[in-house]
Amino acid sequence: MKGKFITLEGPEGSGKTTVSNRIVKMLEEKGYQVLLTREPGGVEIAEQIRNVILDKKNTSMDAKTEALLYAAARRQHLVEKVIPALKKGMIVICDRFVDSSLAYQGVARHLGIKEVYEMNLFAINDVMPDKTLFFDIDYQKGLERIKVNQRETNRLDLEKNDFHKNVYEGYMEICEQYKDRIVKINADQGVDHVVSDAMKEIEKIL
Amino acid sequence: MKGKFITLEGPEGSGKTTVSNRIVKMLEEKGYQVLLTREPGGVEIAEQIRNVILDKKNTSMDAKTEALLYAAARRQHLVEKVIPALKKGMIVICDRFVDSSLAYQGVARHLGIKEVYEMNLFAINDVMPDKTLFFDIDYQKGLERIKVNQRETNRLDLEKNDFHKNVYEGYMEICEQYKDRIVKINADQGVDHVVSDAMKEIEKIL
Repeated sequence: MKGKFITLEGPEGSGKTTVSNRIVKMLEEKGYQVLLTREPGGVEIAEQIRNVILDKKNTSMDAKTEALLYAAARRQHLVEKVIPALKKGMIVICDRFVDSSLAYQGVARHLGIKEVYEMNLFAINDVMPDKTLFFDIDYQKGLERIKVNQRETNRLDLEKNDFHKNVYEGYMEICEQYKDRIVKINADQGVDHVVSDAMKEIEKIL
Repeated sequence: MKGKFITLEGPEGSGKTTVSNRIVKMLEEKGYQVLLTREPGGVEIAEQIRNVILDKKNTSMDAKTEALLYAAARRQHLVEKVIPALKKGMIVICDRFVDSSLAYQGVARHLGIKEVYEMNLFAINDVMPDKTLFFDIDYQKGLERIKVNQRETNRLDLEKNDFHKNVYEGYMEICEQYKDRIVKINADQGVDHVVSDAMKEIEKIL
């Protein structure tokens, strides 16, 4: 496929959304065609799946059910939105992708990185990101940011501190395992600096 | 696990529901504790997933998305309902299980039996049925029965004739592949005879 597929990863409150909006503007000003999208969701069927995953009433959801639902939403989003844009030669920036499943379900929910990755291969085939930016911030600082910004909390936000700690440690493991693809961005600095660091990494593959 | 896990398979309109209700009564009269349940669904989260799968508006659903959603519903249903009942020593009779995915998504949707089976192993681990009854009826006769009974149609009922033909042929392939586990029941005879044939097969494993 002609386009470039860039995914953004990081703990809750790492500032991915703010930074990605800025990056898209900058890329568009440079004349690139950009699709900014997010997981889980981005298309109607995937949004329906997202609602099942994040519904606060669904406290009895099994970890493997959760992982399969994320993979289902991922597949639909990929087929309906990401792949068509890549085929047109666009830059696709996607907020969360398979690494989120590896960190959240593989590590924090103890399903195993390898097991979750292999199940996800069914969903994604060979559509792996050209580059992944990991927004690196202490998970506790991230959670504080969410509180300050008063985004509505969902089922995952309500997880205990240990869960978010495990997610962060999971990401560290994944960054090491896929170091050719994933680059760490220091997200614990002013937003201008984060945007600038992220842009430098993106420009390397354009 | 102490109980017995029996699954029912077959094309649309093969009479699984009618027969299973009769079988449960007969087993209970013999003093067995029986759980009758169905896929996808049977528990709140799985029913939510079922609604996404069968929604007539979701015509753009990708085959792999569909397969992953069925596996997610299967997992939740298994963990919340089937496994606890098997642990109590109950007979669990489940209307549809993994073989439906192999026939519908693996064969009729052309994803491949092996690929769909392996993805499903993530969902079911080693909880395979002790016995599977395949309700064997010509797929066209089955579809006519649905019309007569005026059950509300769903997204899968609306598939073209060829799809249902492929499902049937898929089942034939799966029956052959797993002939130690799956037994064919002639479903094209009076309901008393179908019940009697099914009971004979169930009694073999009790």
